[in-house]
Amino acid sequence: MDIEEITNSKGQLIDDAMNDVFKGNIPNLYDAIKYHIDTGGKRIRPILAILTYEALGKEPRNIAPFAAACEVLHNWILVHDDIEDGDKMRREKPTVWVKYGIAHGINVGDLMAHKVFELILKSDFDEKTILKLTEATMTAAIKTAEGQAMDINLRDNNSPTENDYMRMITGKTAHYLTLPMVGAAVAAGSKQDMINKMIEFGKFIGPAFQITDDVLDLTEGKGRGEIGRDIKEGKRSILVIHCLSKCTKEERKKIIEILNKSPEKTSSADVAFAKKLFEKYKSIEYARNKAESFAAQAKKIADTMPRNLKEILYFFADYLVKRKK
Amino acid sequence: MDIEEITNSKGQLIDDAMNDVFKGNIPNLYDAIKYHIDTGGKRIRPILAILTYEALGKEPRNIAPFAAACEVLHNWILVHDDIEDGDKMRREKPTVWVKYGIAHGINVGDLMAHKVFELILKSDFDEKTILKLTEATMTAAIKTAEGQAMDINLRDNNSPTENDYMRMITGKTAHYLTLPMVGAAVAAGSKQDMINKMIEFGKFIGPAFQITDDVLDLTEGKGRGEIGRDIKEGKRSILVIHCLSKCTKEERKKIIEILNKSPEKTSSADVAFAKKLFEKYKSIEYARNKAESFAAQAKKIADTMPRNLKEILYFFADYLVKRKK
Repeated sequence: MDIEEITNSKGQLIDDAMNDVFKGNIPNLYDAIKYHIDTGGKRIRPILAILTYEALGKEPRNIAPFAAACEVLHNWILVHDDIEDGDKMRREKPTVWVKYGIAHGINVGDLMAHKVFELILKSDFDEKTILKLTEATMTAAIKTAEGQAMDINLRDNNSPTENDYMRMITGKTAHYLTLPMVGAAVAAGSKQDMINKMIEFGKFIGPAFQITDDVLDLTEGKGRGEIGRDIKEGKRSILVIHCLSKCTKEERKKIIEILNKSPEKTSSADVAFAKKLFEKYKSIEYARNKAESFAAQAKKIADTMPRNLKEILYFFADYLVKRKK
Repeated sequence: MDIEEITNSKGQLIDDAMNDVFKGNIPNLYDAIKYHIDTGGKRIRPILAILTYEALGKEPRNIAPFAAACEVLHNWILVHDDIEDGDKMRREKPTVWVKYGIAHGINVGDLMAHKVFELILKSDFDEKTILKLTEATMTAAIKTAEGQAMDINLRDNNSPTENDYMRMITGKTAHYLTLPMVGAAVAAGSKQDMINKMIEFGKFIGPAFQITDDVLDLTEGKGRGEIGRDIKEGKRSILVIHCLSKCTKEERKKIIEILNKSPEKTSSADVAFAKKLFEKYKSIEYARNKAESFAAQAKKIADTMPRNLKEILYFFADYLVKRKK
């Protein structure tokens, strides 16, 4: 599957649906939304919804509003996350709150969060189906917020365990990442058994995604203008947790000290120190193996699905683990 | 109608519905929600939903989840508003972001925003009705966010007109304030004509509410620990707009200067100067008259409604304009 080719052929459907609900002309609101959405190009989530719906034998046009809703959901969560994490750059550009201020940043996210439901309610499905889509979306947003609270809490934890970490990332990602597929299956009238399998798939692919994210921060930089931003933010990444479980008492003291500094006070030398320690204890290798093992477990679930769905799930699993940003 | 008596008799229904969806034990999330909701006691919005539903001949228990949803909607908007406005006190207590930090503050609001829909989806109505309630709620939230963007924008406007102000407050309050009644009418299967009248009522009662709010900031303090907080925040209140339209060029320059200072840099002398100017030009009197005139217009719409509904709308109009906080 070639993601660019698919984006070219399906992108318009998604953009049309989004443009349909973002038509207002209030300054620092609809322009800010357009600014934010235009910074990200691949539209992997809505494409996943469309591909799944097609694989289930349905006409892609009908799922377009829900597919767009998945993209909007993804994007508003990023707008708020960037404020919560103090991230100034996203996809190599200033984040919404940096460009428009924190007040507008919060409000922009709030409007988008509700536009998600406007899109779903616009779908041309029967009422039962629309309600199910609303419920699946709301559930994903709630689980993500619960995971985010655990994530913020973990940053004050000086003895974080892999168990804490797994609970947090599973909460944050499992439902959220699989929503496009789950919604497409709901809309196509698939049996609950298949939907459950997709959520189960998410419980493995979500952690695979997040662990890959942790590694990318230290290797590629994730479009945030620097390498090792997570260290500055004090994130208890899988690298941190693994390293803490292996290092000496002195090293432990030093690394916690670095993580607990405010981002502005964390120096490049601090980041380099942490990185060196991760290398010493092979924490990056550990994380990569873990991500691959989760992806492999996710694929085992995909193996029990119909062939054309399996293909999509394999593609998604590979995409999440092998991406470079 | 005695609001305390009604709160005592219906409060439990509402609290039970809220407790039903706020059961998690993730620190800095569910405890923060409980903290915030417990600071406000009167539950005027959910009571309005219940009273309206009863007045339409229905059993109050069925509307309880939607009534609770209105209270949660109201409260999450306040959580985010307090961050956006930099308000440190609400209902005489530290605001959520002051107590739990900005990151948790945003996330708490996001979770609550979705719990609103969880409550609505839990209602024991048919699917069509639940969808209509979802749509009315989503629309109110969208209009409120649009109004909020205009509000934030207005603070950078040095020549604000009453027209700008009216557009902003009508956006921010008309749908939002009438949602409890509109939802109750939708759930009771009322005709569209009655629902339209309620929204029309909101277009007068919303401004009456907001203008009263502007006056209260300068007279009673609105539970934010000080008098004149709006001046510190640079809000273009009706008092500011009226005063600017009457005062001399010098006074105009001085008042804009005060409003454009950051809240920390605005002194008590600055607030006193503005207050004195509002008195000089009778801006407070102007605002009070305006609020009363809007309330009177709202009541004229109420006069065209069935007697027991009219009674509720009159009560609500009086409550909003005559309240002391």
